[in-house]
Amino acid sequence: MEQANFVRIFEVGPRDGLQNEKNPLTPQLKAELVNRLAAAGLRHIESGSFVSPKWVPQMANSDEVFQLIERRGGTIYSALTPNLKGYQLARAAQADEVAVFAAASETFSQKNINCSIEESLDRFRPLMEAAQQDGIPVRGYISCVLGCPYEGAVDPSRVAELAASLIAMGCYEVSLGDTIGVGTPNKAARLIQAVSGLVDTKRLAVHFHDTYGQAIANIYACLEEGVRCVDSSVAGLGGCPYAPGAGGNVATEDVVYLLQGCGYETGVDLNLLSECGHWISLQLNRPTGSKVATALNGQCARQ
Amino acid sequence: MEQANFVRIFEVGPRDGLQNEKNPLTPQLKAELVNRLAAAGLRHIESGSFVSPKWVPQMANSDEVFQLIERRGGTIYSALTPNLKGYQLARAAQADEVAVFAAASETFSQKNINCSIEESLDRFRPLMEAAQQDGIPVRGYISCVLGCPYEGAVDPSRVAELAASLIAMGCYEVSLGDTIGVGTPNKAARLIQAVSGLVDTKRLAVHFHDTYGQAIANIYACLEEGVRCVDSSVAGLGGCPYAPGAGGNVATEDVVYLLQGCGYETGVDLNLLSECGHWISLQLNRPTGSKVATALNGQCARQ
Repeated sequence: MEQANFVRIFEVGPRDGLQNEKNPLTPQLKAELVNRLAAAGLRHIESGSFVSPKWVPQMANSDEVFQLIERRGGTIYSALTPNLKGYQLARAAQADEVAVFAAASETFSQKNINCSIEESLDRFRPLMEAAQQDGIPVRGYISCVLGCPYEGAVDPSRVAELAASLIAMGCYEVSLGDTIGVGTPNKAARLIQAVSGLVDTKRLAVHFHDTYGQAIANIYACLEEGVRCVDSSVAGLGGCPYAPGAGGNVATEDVVYLLQGCGYETGVDLNLLSECGHWISLQLNRPTGSKVATALNGQCARQ
Repeated sequence: MEQANFVRIFEVGPRDGLQNEKNPLTPQLKAELVNRLAAAGLRHIESGSFVSPKWVPQMANSDEVFQLIERRGGTIYSALTPNLKGYQLARAAQADEVAVFAAASETFSQKNINCSIEESLDRFRPLMEAAQQDGIPVRGYISCVLGCPYEGAVDPSRVAELAASLIAMGCYEVSLGDTIGVGTPNKAARLIQAVSGLVDTKRLAVHFHDTYGQAIANIYACLEEGVRCVDSSVAGLGGCPYAPGAGGNVATEDVVYLLQGCGYETGVDLNLLSECGHWISLQLNRPTGSKVATALNGQCARQ
């Protein structure tokens, strides 16, 4: 699968997506979402989060979700883990992989996880050690890589240094997140160029939000810079409920359409994925955030 | 205004946009839309169409619209004209500029304008002669440049030859339209490379529909190839009414955001444009198709 034109899609809908949806889902429905995504060919699925339910009530039943998932060979079911305790819960739930998250902006780090960037790295160290002993891969997320709601523009060299620190700590990959979706493709390309100076591009993933409609263009620019892993969320889960299709994670269907059109292999069946997106949108009683899913559904055939 | 980093936006909302909206507007509201777009800094506004009302009833009152527009110095108010008769009506309405339209696909040409591509060019000749005598610039549109609903993929060399024919006939610019929105940025870039072999890139514009969410990425790829004129529609007017934001013309607000982020000059005030988009969406009783307008409106601030 790892040929030069293969792009790995890291599906974050069941975690980053559902976490930002108003309507709660039962563990059974969450597990069915994960199963349908795996059936559509997605091989990396962030299936839950082991953070304090006090902070993220939507993820409170992640252990149940992991129990209910029908494990499919070759598919990696990962979990978000803020610290050693979260890691131990993820391990108990038999997550195949975990992820830690830091911010490229001091203010955002303080407001989001109540500690400085340096303190967040310190929190990860015991987790990293335990994961290495257990042979569990750890992914690193960096938020606000192209802008911070409090500090504005973010210096790409700061992102590069933080990415290098996460790799040095043992992360196998770092996902660069434009959390507030303010990036444009030229800035995304410059960011990849900067980070690639300190970290092998093969170890970089990109995580774009479509707040300003730039996500697909930003992903294209990053592919042109050699990035071969893209985070996305089926049906654009996590998007703003007030404006269908707006705001949140870029829709996996639209990313797959881009990749297929550009001649990349993804291993994903776009029709099965689109059906999965319609199914989950129905469960959440919200329109799909994917334009491809809408078009394939034929509602806009005349267009 | 014509410095190297200036990108001209050709606003098509009042024509290509409204033509595809279910709810009809009075000539007064159409003229107010044009006036608000001009006030936001748009200098090329396709304000109406002089085709048979039998085919496009939404444009039946274009002559009234042109009468009601408050002409602003330095702003070009253009009209779509299928033949000499349409041109004469556009002239009588004091359109500053007219546009003719051909298709890159024989089947689409037959189904859309009931004649072959060659016959469509013959129809334009008397119009071109009259326009040249009157000193009226003529723009050429080519539809289906990246795909046809009946023939599938379209050969870029056919698009290049048709573009060269339109320029040879006297068009000052040719707008390349991905009518069904199937293109991806790699294909858009290859198309520009092919057409630029026969036509100066300075004479090319691009016209993308966002049916599959690829429009902004396609525009970015064309900018990278040297294109400096982009067609777009305020609020994504013309989009599919069943799926807000899907289907139709790319939203001008999202194009301006891309261009500003990439360091291009547009002369457009994004806030005024966004207000105009919200106003017209209200008149049409439909949500805006622009993610930028939605984000600027603050509904999704948390994203």
